[in-house]
Amino acid sequence: MMLTDPAKKYRPFVTVDLPDRQWPNKRIETAPIWCSVDLRDGNQSLIDPMDQERKQRFFDMLLKVGFKQIEVGFPSASQTDFDFVRSLIEQDKIPEDVTIQVLTQARPHLIERTFEALQGAKNAIVHVYNATDPMFRRVVFNVDKPECVQIAVEATQQIRAQMDAAPETNWTFQYSPELFTTTEMDFAVEIVEAVMGAYGSSADRPMIVNLPATVEVATPNNYADQIEWFCRHVKNRDHLIVSVHPHNDRGTGVAAAELTLMAGADRVEGTLFGNGERTGNVDIVTLAMNMYTQGVYPELDFSNITPIMREVEYCNQLPVHPRHPYVGDLVFTAFSGSHQDAIKKGMADRRANPDALWDVPYLPIDPLDVGRSYEAVIRVNSQSGKGGVSYLLEQEHGIELPRRLSIEFSQVVQEVAERTGREITSQMIYQAFADEYLEQCAPFALVNHRLSSEPDSPKVTLEAVVESDGSRQTLKGEGNGPLAAFIKALAAAGHDVEIIDYHEHSRGQGADAEAIAYVEVRIDGKAVFGVGTDESITSASMKGVLSAINRHHSTQPAAANVTAETLG
Amino acid sequence: MMLTDPAKKYRPFVTVDLPDRQWPNKRIETAPIWCSVDLRDGNQSLIDPMDQERKQRFFDMLLKVGFKQIEVGFPSASQTDFDFVRSLIEQDKIPEDVTIQVLTQARPHLIERTFEALQGAKNAIVHVYNATDPMFRRVVFNVDKPECVQIAVEATQQIRAQMDAAPETNWTFQYSPELFTTTEMDFAVEIVEAVMGAYGSSADRPMIVNLPATVEVATPNNYADQIEWFCRHVKNRDHLIVSVHPHNDRGTGVAAAELTLMAGADRVEGTLFGNGERTGNVDIVTLAMNMYTQGVYPELDFSNITPIMREVEYCNQLPVHPRHPYVGDLVFTAFSGSHQDAIKKGMADRRANPDALWDVPYLPIDPLDVGRSYEAVIRVNSQSGKGGVSYLLEQEHGIELPRRLSIEFSQVVQEVAERTGREITSQMIYQAFADEYLEQCAPFALVNHRLSSEPDSPKVTLEAVVESDGSRQTLKGEGNGPLAAFIKALAAAGHDVEIIDYHEHSRGQGADAEAIAYVEVRIDGKAVFGVGTDESITSASMKGVLSAINRHHSTQPAAANVTAETLG
Repeated sequence: MMLTDPAKKYRPFVTVDLPDRQWPNKRIETAPIWCSVDLRDGNQSLIDPMDQERKQRFFDMLLKVGFKQIEVGFPSASQTDFDFVRSLIEQDKIPEDVTIQVLTQARPHLIERTFEALQGAKNAIVHVYNATDPMFRRVVFNVDKPECVQIAVEATQQIRAQMDAAPETNWTFQYSPELFTTTEMDFAVEIVEAVMGAYGSSADRPMIVNLPATVEVATPNNYADQIEWFCRHVKNRDHLIVSVHPHNDRGTGVAAAELTLMAGADRVEGTLFGNGERTGNVDIVTLAMNMYTQGVYPELDFSNITPIMREVEYCNQLPVHPRHPYVGDLVFTAFSGSHQDAIKKGMADRRANPDALWDVPYLPIDPLDVGRSYEAVIRVNSQSGKGGVSYLLEQEHGIELPRRLSIEFSQVVQEVAERTGREITSQMIYQAFADEYLEQCAPFALVNHRLSSEPDSPKVTLEAVVESDGSRQTLKGEGNGPLAAFIKALAAAGHDVEIIDYHEHSRGQGADAEAIAYVEVRIDGKAVFGVGTDESITSASMKGVLSAINRHHSTQPAAANVTAETLG
Repeated sequence: MMLTDPAKKYRPFVTVDLPDRQWPNKRIETAPIWCSVDLRDGNQSLIDPMDQERKQRFFDMLLKVGFKQIEVGFPSASQTDFDFVRSLIEQDKIPEDVTIQVLTQARPHLIERTFEALQGAKNAIVHVYNATDPMFRRVVFNVDKPECVQIAVEATQQIRAQMDAAPETNWTFQYSPELFTTTEMDFAVEIVEAVMGAYGSSADRPMIVNLPATVEVATPNNYADQIEWFCRHVKNRDHLIVSVHPHNDRGTGVAAAELTLMAGADRVEGTLFGNGERTGNVDIVTLAMNMYTQGVYPELDFSNITPIMREVEYCNQLPVHPRHPYVGDLVFTAFSGSHQDAIKKGMADRRANPDALWDVPYLPIDPLDVGRSYEAVIRVNSQSGKGGVSYLLEQEHGIELPRRLSIEFSQVVQEVAERTGREITSQMIYQAFADEYLEQCAPFALVNHRLSSEPDSPKVTLEAVVESDGSRQTLKGEGNGPLAAFIKALAAAGHDVEIIDYHEHSRGQGADAEAIAYVEVRIDGKAVFGVGTDESITSASMKGVLSAINRHHSTQPAAANVTAETLG
């Protein structure tokens, strides 16, 4: 039993009464207005906050990704933030179509300092907040509802006056009732309407109202209910741009953002890969790519996602998890054999139908769309079956195993994997393949051969020189083709071999091209595979047959000799 | 612009028609049946799968946490898994009330091998699956709907027969229509009903139907719609235990699990901290603790979460992210000054009302409930205001700063933080405090003092020996108390000092106890703080006054001398 009975310590979330909610019938069909808060909410939550160089790098990257609204700091609370805002403005680093945003508390001297920081900006959002949650009103600020409204209204009036006094800047006003999701909904509407009045918002000059889940405290459908309730109850909804600001305390920040967009929000504040206070802000990368996979252009460009991740890791000095959606090192990797097999078939189907909509097993997005490669898709370990092994052999070594050989060989690899207990690399697979099939040169090795045929005759005559235990012998046979002739020649020398199946293809191109032959034969009633490679398709197939005979004669499969050490 | 227009490559998810959905009106009121799939789905997705030692450690930990159903492997696909299942059974490592589960494909020789692995188990779930999604039917398996049903039914018949042949085991049957969420819903119901018929499920002997989001492909409300649709349409719902198995490709696996539980699911398959294929399985720890914070006992014990995290990191050889809900290193940390201030007030309120329901700003859970401490809650950096600084001084050094001093000192710390650009530790804060206030011993230092008073008189006479530039002088004064007398004595020596505010408290206990005095004085029209400590409350307050005078005389605040190097 846990130490505490949770029912005596925690209260369930009080839901909004909205039985006729409409959001579950909606879908996300266009991108919202995005606002990155990496340089403010993200930065203030770092063990080591960004210095000016990191801030500038992060800002430049956000521009490249396509953000048009960027919260750059809390200049009245931090000299570092103040200096950064000044440097952006004075060094003319903000494109014409980009708006910077700064946060301030609703206090006169901080608002004044905020406008000092913004002097000369072309486009700026002044974002003021106060806490509206009842516990904060009681415990933290000791104010009643009217006093709480008064704080917000007075700050708004001051901001409006300071905006009017600096008409060279294209101003936008933003108000956040902090802790919106734990505020009484009617009070949230009341305070926002009071602020709208104080600011004089209109359809022509809307203000942003940001309704944050400052702490995530309920299943994400509740946030959506609240946003829909708010949008349906607030007067003059068209005078507002409704923004959400989800956090991730319950691990459902992305879902909360999605459901609130369905519920009517116009704008999302979040960070790249979800950095932010405690468990983080909502991850805008995941939100954007989730839209992308539904056919909606997110208006942000993550088509080369890995360098973006590395840059964020550098600036935040925090890692992105290997299972992070769309970007983690492991998310385009399938270890399970059945998954690998299905992906291989899906990729082949896609090659046959390149214009069809994306539909590849276990890959909700084409890795190419985020700059990742197919090569990285599949790794192999002891849990894998044939799919991954044959995929890697095909992609990286040009070896296209016939189905039954692929099954046989996957067992070889699986033995290696289980014996070593480690991940099997493509190179290890190729080595195991070479050891098991290609380098089976004893007891019999092909030295050379000569073919002859008569015009108008289907028959081929073969003389093959085979070395065995240091001595050479010449085998002779005749058949409908070189392979048949070789089988006859072997039979004449006392080796009874029957061909079951035979595949051959070229490997590589031009001068380096060679043939690879996969031969399945029956010897002493047992089926056995052999593989041969040679520049000559004839020699390759004959080597394949000898490989099978040699494997049949070896008491131990060669793979058993591959030790953990040599695979190290 | 991105390389690809997503509308030409990706299709939006096809939603279920369920306008009268009921799940958004529900909440989660009891724990579901939990099944850990760490040792199967989690393990098969690892770069280096667990060896027997790691598997056993993980299994033992799952028992301690309280899991009653544990999927332990895929024994027909992996010798390692087969051996592990055998060792659990043969070495009697499974408690009486725990059921192990194993996965198998719907193929006769694999099912046979699965029963070999389970021989002698007391309680076992045989979990069989086949893919029901239309793309898988077409591309991967090349079967039509009746053939797909036939595969499932024949496997079920075989399993039923093998169960009947081994009555010593308490069997449970589980079927998964793999890729449930991308399967046509009416076909999902059709195949499950066919399987129910083949197995002969009943209210007395229900089977588990696991409806996986094998790949997460839509916003989580869609999975909930599908589960509710399925539960309302399948015949004999009471013959089924409905299980969900969310993945996290869109970062909404936790939300999906929660909404599907609201929609009627009875059971959740997931892993600790969300390990699993690609982006992972749903994280059961987050799900359980989310319930806990709503007053619902999750029937799993994570009251000492950090060692569990370390053990999982050891077994999986993958990290848990520092922002992972409930467990990440940073999730009980507030860097922002306003957050810190609010937490401090909330903690104080809670101390005053220890039996109230949990309601502390920015902390959705009491860190103690997962074995974390309050000491770890707050760190300080250049983004922090007064709250964090004074909290740390109070918690770790017994120094309770008066409000205005706390504001003044936070600026000292902020300067240090901005100059060093690094996190400020509690020790660095204490050192900055000592440098700035306690060790201000020049030009004036108290050597000793003597007090005298007459009976029946309120007046106190003080003689204080003060050292200045190597020479000592004796100051004399009289007042209503020692501090007033000291002020008078200073005035007589030409130092005009007016007391504005004064706080003093004891620090430490018993023989080590000392007094600390915070004195705010006005000198030359300016307010300045001083702090003194001594075993004597009188000496402490006098030292505080001298500290203020010395600070006033120093042209540079002492903190400016604290370099990045000494703070290193």
